[in-house]
Amino acid sequence: MAVYTEVPAEALQVFLARYDLGPLVMAKGIAEGVSNSNFLIETGAGRFILTLYERRIEAADIPFFLDLMTHLADAGLPVPRPVPDRRGVLLQTLQGKAAALIQFLPGVSVTEPSPDHARAAGTALARLHQAGASFARKRANALDVAASRRAAAHLGERLDALEPGLAARVATSLAQLGRDWPKGLPVGLIHADLFPDNVLFLGTEVSGLIDFYFAATDLLAYDLAVLAAAWAFTPDGRGYLSDHDAALMAGYESVRPLLPGERAALPLLGRAASLRFLMTRALDWFEGPGDALVNRKNPLAFARRLAHYAAA
Amino acid sequence: MAVYTEVPAEALQVFLARYDLGPLVMAKGIAEGVSNSNFLIETGAGRFILTLYERRIEAADIPFFLDLMTHLADAGLPVPRPVPDRRGVLLQTLQGKAAALIQFLPGVSVTEPSPDHARAAGTALARLHQAGASFARKRANALDVAASRRAAAHLGERLDALEPGLAARVATSLAQLGRDWPKGLPVGLIHADLFPDNVLFLGTEVSGLIDFYFAATDLLAYDLAVLAAAWAFTPDGRGYLSDHDAALMAGYESVRPLLPGERAALPLLGRAASLRFLMTRALDWFEGPGDALVNRKNPLAFARRLAHYAAA
Repeated sequence: MAVYTEVPAEALQVFLARYDLGPLVMAKGIAEGVSNSNFLIETGAGRFILTLYERRIEAADIPFFLDLMTHLADAGLPVPRPVPDRRGVLLQTLQGKAAALIQFLPGVSVTEPSPDHARAAGTALARLHQAGASFARKRANALDVAASRRAAAHLGERLDALEPGLAARVATSLAQLGRDWPKGLPVGLIHADLFPDNVLFLGTEVSGLIDFYFAATDLLAYDLAVLAAAWAFTPDGRGYLSDHDAALMAGYESVRPLLPGERAALPLLGRAASLRFLMTRALDWFEGPGDALVNRKNPLAFARRLAHYAAA
Repeated sequence: MAVYTEVPAEALQVFLARYDLGPLVMAKGIAEGVSNSNFLIETGAGRFILTLYERRIEAADIPFFLDLMTHLADAGLPVPRPVPDRRGVLLQTLQGKAAALIQFLPGVSVTEPSPDHARAAGTALARLHQAGASFARKRANALDVAASRRAAAHLGERLDALEPGLAARVATSLAQLGRDWPKGLPVGLIHADLFPDNVLFLGTEVSGLIDFYFAATDLLAYDLAVLAAAWAFTPDGRGYLSDHDAALMAGYESVRPLLPGERAALPLLGRAASLRFLMTRALDWFEGPGDALVNRKNPLAFARRLAHYAAA
């Protein structure tokens, strides 16, 4: 949660003059996102999220993300639509940062999803994969297994400070992923980070899929493995929730049935997903900014998921 | 700006069941307040601010603040009204913290007020003083000159680390305030912290007066001196803005003309106001929590205001 960059009302009013949205009625910095500053604003034309892109987001990637969100919204998915200014421009500059004005979507994120929530998230992910098939742009997944391998090499024995023996267990999993990575599975547009905090619900209906800033072109089944790692465990990773796992798989397959090769690859892809979050959390843990604006999350929650999938 | 306490949607839904406000539609932690955690929430019944009271607010004082906000809203002032639950209760508990649900008011705070904004703030403060006259409850001002004296004694020579000679200048002002404190001036309900970030505007109309958590019973003219110290200087205290000062005084006196003794006391009360903020900022500077959730503000901005009023 974070507001890294302050935006005085005066600067916001100048910014909004690029749009046809009427007078500014409200602006609140909101505690959302660890890679950007977000403001909930209201004008005569309605509510919007103003995002200022901060560290971790490559400026060159932002047009990909904004075009993708537009494409998915056009396809009828509950994805917040970037709002063009009067000249049709999505990507702006504000307070020296890249910025975009984005449609506000109602809904709340659940902290303890029910199986019904997990099923709805699985269904939404499959629809996202279907709609992504007609999105022409590609983006390499910057947080793939190679990135986990580099992170593990960089962290080295520090992983054992998190948990004795963790460095060796990570090395074993990385070796297996290198050896057994599945070939020939369907590739497409993936969200790559569809955790419960990135899904908005009204009741058990998905009202919003948000935070597309890790979206990339990769194995569709890997995205489902991320979803399972995110939704089918207690947050600390100690408890595997089989009902949630079954529900999210059933939701997904109600829209897009898995190929046999995809189903067979899921435990291995679960290891890859667990490693990805273990590594980025471990990097944050040891090297993240000292400020408390970012809640550092315990990497061990994903070491436990890794152990679950390694045993599968 | 801060969200100190997380409130999962599940806990929020349980909390809202005490009210008749329909289903939860949105909940966003907002970057407002340094003494509490605030959430902007929306239900079927509209928008609300949920406040969780954190450090610096005495639990025993909260009913005073909530009753005062209700009184002022009843009097027609643009003050957010605390929302009673089904049983009529204002003060709740949530996540182990004292909490209250409060009406949402539209508007934005200005960072660089114009003289028109200052005039409107002065008018609103005078109306607040008038409406406060019929509020029966009293609260001693915990941040009075005696508190500044204690803070100066506690900080000692550390003040000179902020600026050479500051400890002596503070001592001189404290001695003068002790000797010359005005007697017999009107006492009543004061906001005591009406800075630009605590006034919401739609255009140049005041749409909200917020953050009553320093409100107390003290000299009305002292509250006007706080307003002048807050609005009639550049934020760093280097520039005195005579147009803003004249405008806020004119706005105030358009509703409640000052007595001659009040007008004569303003420079001295300006010293008291400058000292109050200099001292609390200096305490935060040297002893505040290390976390970056709280923006530490430079105490020297008020040392400069103190020098301005000492020269007056």
